[in-house]
Amino acid sequence: MNKSPVFESLAVVGPGLIGSSLLRRSKENGDIARYLIAIDHDPSVVKRAKELELADFYTTDLAAGVKNADAVILCTPTGSIETLASDALKHMQPGSILSDVASVRGKLGPKISSLLPKNIHYIPAHPMAGTEFSGPDAGFSTLFENRWCLVVPPENSSESAISKIELLWQKCGARTRRITDEYHDHVCAMVSHLPHLLAFTICDTADRLSSDLRADVLEYAASGFRDFTRIAASDPIMWRDIFLANRDVILEILERFQKETEKMAQAIRDEKSEDITDRIKRGRRIRQTLIANHQA
Amino acid sequence: MNKSPVFESLAVVGPGLIGSSLLRRSKENGDIARYLIAIDHDPSVVKRAKELELADFYTTDLAAGVKNADAVILCTPTGSIETLASDALKHMQPGSILSDVASVRGKLGPKISSLLPKNIHYIPAHPMAGTEFSGPDAGFSTLFENRWCLVVPPENSSESAISKIELLWQKCGARTRRITDEYHDHVCAMVSHLPHLLAFTICDTADRLSSDLRADVLEYAASGFRDFTRIAASDPIMWRDIFLANRDVILEILERFQKETEKMAQAIRDEKSEDITDRIKRGRRIRQTLIANHQA
Repeated sequence: MNKSPVFESLAVVGPGLIGSSLLRRSKENGDIARYLIAIDHDPSVVKRAKELELADFYTTDLAAGVKNADAVILCTPTGSIETLASDALKHMQPGSILSDVASVRGKLGPKISSLLPKNIHYIPAHPMAGTEFSGPDAGFSTLFENRWCLVVPPENSSESAISKIELLWQKCGARTRRITDEYHDHVCAMVSHLPHLLAFTICDTADRLSSDLRADVLEYAASGFRDFTRIAASDPIMWRDIFLANRDVILEILERFQKETEKMAQAIRDEKSEDITDRIKRGRRIRQTLIANHQA
Repeated sequence: MNKSPVFESLAVVGPGLIGSSLLRRSKENGDIARYLIAIDHDPSVVKRAKELELADFYTTDLAAGVKNADAVILCTPTGSIETLASDALKHMQPGSILSDVASVRGKLGPKISSLLPKNIHYIPAHPMAGTEFSGPDAGFSTLFENRWCLVVPPENSSESAISKIELLWQKCGARTRRITDEYHDHVCAMVSHLPHLLAFTICDTADRLSSDLRADVLEYAASGFRDFTRIAASDPIMWRDIFLANRDVILEILERFQKETEKMAQAIRDEKSEDITDRIKRGRRIRQTLIANHQA
């Protein structure tokens, strides 16, 4: 039984949590790419990828790694994508597809599109999956199972190139959807960036407590606080990049959040019992919809 | 083999999540009380407690329910404790112990102490356990397993009465610790009240989005947002009571949090890359300590 793979050879730049999960899944499936190439500028990451047998070829040399690939997926922090894309494009072959998994689109789409040589396609897609862990050891082949992958092709992209990237993620178990860059960044700001920002900040607030109180907060963390610390464990560089790249949208939604928080504080200050319950109930409604949607 | 129980008869007022868990555990153990009494002013709750066979006796009549008990534990929302304690104390027998599980101490200790007839003890203890569910069906016998129970006896309480309440919670699987009311309220504000307030508010913020965006936020909730919604599902009345009862401490810690949030926002606005990573790293440190403490 011959499986016809989506790509002849697939190069993954940055075999970290996302990149190594993609490689693991591709290896397991067999029908995503015939050859897998793992690329990283850090020799220790390449060494580890090799030990884990994540791919067929391994290199620290971007040019060598991408030149024969018919798809190159950048799985590095958001801040590095533009430079890497520009470097990779110089060496990619005609007809190949460049993609990235960046969690913020910002102006990446038009910027990278403007660098595209004729006959190379740029089809970014953001798989909305992750854990608080990072690095080649953190990945697993089922990471994308039943998760959304938001495909954000620039205008006038080749339909067949889009379909190939969609098929790649569908074969990883994800559900794909095409949306615009701007809408992508608004949804992600609310769903992921704001929650992370608040989680980092609540942990930071706790860290600044007097040492007795801090120690006891840790001791008794189980009562709600712990849930915030889990997402606060995520990679600092990745999140710094996200906050900078989606700056305006995050600040806008944070301002809304701050206003609602101030209203809740005022209701508590003034002992406006009904206001408080109303606000809590609105929050609950969201949870109930999630449960009804079987996503809770 | 005869087990000698801690109490002859134990009355639980409010067999909800906490109360019914305490009853279930007592029934399972056999060595907490010989007779269990479930009391609630709501006949439908009493009926349900009976169907679930949570106790040996059931009543909607507080006076009748407490008069022969040697321990009465109020497991009702924080706002109801003072009135219920005052009512219960009129009918309790000499030598018996009144307790409550309120999540905020505030002035409850001195207030209820001032109502105490001679020979009745008041030993409140707050088991730091819970789920987002409520009602008699929500409880389970292992809810308190390995969780902390903060014992907050008023000054000059009887040592033997304190020990009995401690033993009760230890037999439920909890670790007990004695602290002052004030310290209790500060720890809980940081560990539980602030996280809940923020979770309610972030869900509220999402609920107020335009309907398209709101629908998609729910669709893609898995990326961090979902963790906040879980704790936002908790009972509105219970939480309103907590916010009102611990008002000053919560507002103080919220103000600190708001200041840190504003600093983070400013760092993002000014693109101060290092500031952002530092703040994220501080948050992570808390998580790492939790992991080292085997509590994550």
